[in-house]
Amino acid sequence: MARTGRRPGNQDTREAILMAAKEAFAARGYDKASIRQIASGAEVDPALVHHYFGSKEKLFLATLEAPVDPGEMIPKIVAGGVDGVGERLVRIFLTVWDSPAGTSIAALLRSALSHDWSARMLREFVTSQILRRIVQNLEIDPKEAPTRASLAASQMVGLAMARYIVKIEPIASLPREAVVAAIGPTIQRYLAGPVEGLDQYQ
Amino acid sequence: MARTGRRPGNQDTREAILMAAKEAFAARGYDKASIRQIASGAEVDPALVHHYFGSKEKLFLATLEAPVDPGEMIPKIVAGGVDGVGERLVRIFLTVWDSPAGTSIAALLRSALSHDWSARMLREFVTSQILRRIVQNLEIDPKEAPTRASLAASQMVGLAMARYIVKIEPIASLPREAVVAAIGPTIQRYLAGPVEGLDQYQ
Repeated sequence: MARTGRRPGNQDTREAILMAAKEAFAARGYDKASIRQIASGAEVDPALVHHYFGSKEKLFLATLEAPVDPGEMIPKIVAGGVDGVGERLVRIFLTVWDSPAGTSIAALLRSALSHDWSARMLREFVTSQILRRIVQNLEIDPKEAPTRASLAASQMVGLAMARYIVKIEPIASLPREAVVAAIGPTIQRYLAGPVEGLDQYQ
Repeated sequence: MARTGRRPGNQDTREAILMAAKEAFAARGYDKASIRQIASGAEVDPALVHHYFGSKEKLFLATLEAPVDPGEMIPKIVAGGVDGVGERLVRIFLTVWDSPAGTSIAALLRSALSHDWSARMLREFVTSQILRRIVQNLEIDPKEAPTRASLAASQMVGLAMARYIVKIEPIASLPREAVVAAIGPTIQRYLAGPVEGLDQYQ
């Protein structure tokens, strides 16, 4: 698409914002990318970015074509606090993967393996949209939270790979609640249980 | 390569066997593929397959261009029995990934995400060459072993993804022994500890 100043049609403007946002999120990460900068890249007024996408978070989800909005899932995971958060996280994660959205998520994960851009976007998505919001809502020592969150991410990404992509049996065909019972305690320990040496590596 | 009966040169024969083996392993899986059948597909005598590759296992590793031979790692993991197997598995796994072989393994994992053939071969490799041999060498209830092994696989694949491919921080830069201390107990529990409801899903 040639850049010839402000686009007349709504669709063109929306597309130009999305393209500028993809560039900005990949180059700077979610936190450092700004609406003002994205608007400048798209050669539009920042107000138009808000008009089309509402918030930086929603714009980010749109660039990923994210099939689910973590904003709807997080409250269910953190409701009830730390107790049982591991099982709730695994259960809701599997419910989303087993829904029609699962196909889109699998495509995103596959793509992350072949393209550095996708890998970076997936990383930003998992850390800024999911893990950070979960640990912020629980009573987890902020110094330990990033390590705990990335340990949990390693098990959740691996569960998705083993069950839905590489399809290692029998975990690929286990009933959902069997997976929750087996892997829930792992997530519980990573997020809120004893993890040896955690204070050494912050 | 056109198939015109037995190949005169050694290199051609070796290649023909490899191609037939890739087809057979992908179509039937490691266990059901036979040397006789692979020889027939390559239009050579089964003795030649043994001559070039030694065993079905070594032929399988050759089709994968596997950069490491699990036969050399497994004894180190199972030495000492069930006690501490989780930490040993994580430590040796990270040592291999941090070695020059890591680049080839990352390529194999990436490829498994984009191609069903690679995914199937990776699955066969992980289950037949690594997990089965680990659980056979430990005192694990054979009825529970497949589920326990696939739970361990989910964490190990996820660790590789989080640390080496998607590079989620801080797990991507943690010292090796910090990862061993954090994730070793998970593998220990999956292989040999209490996993609720395991007997319901065999």
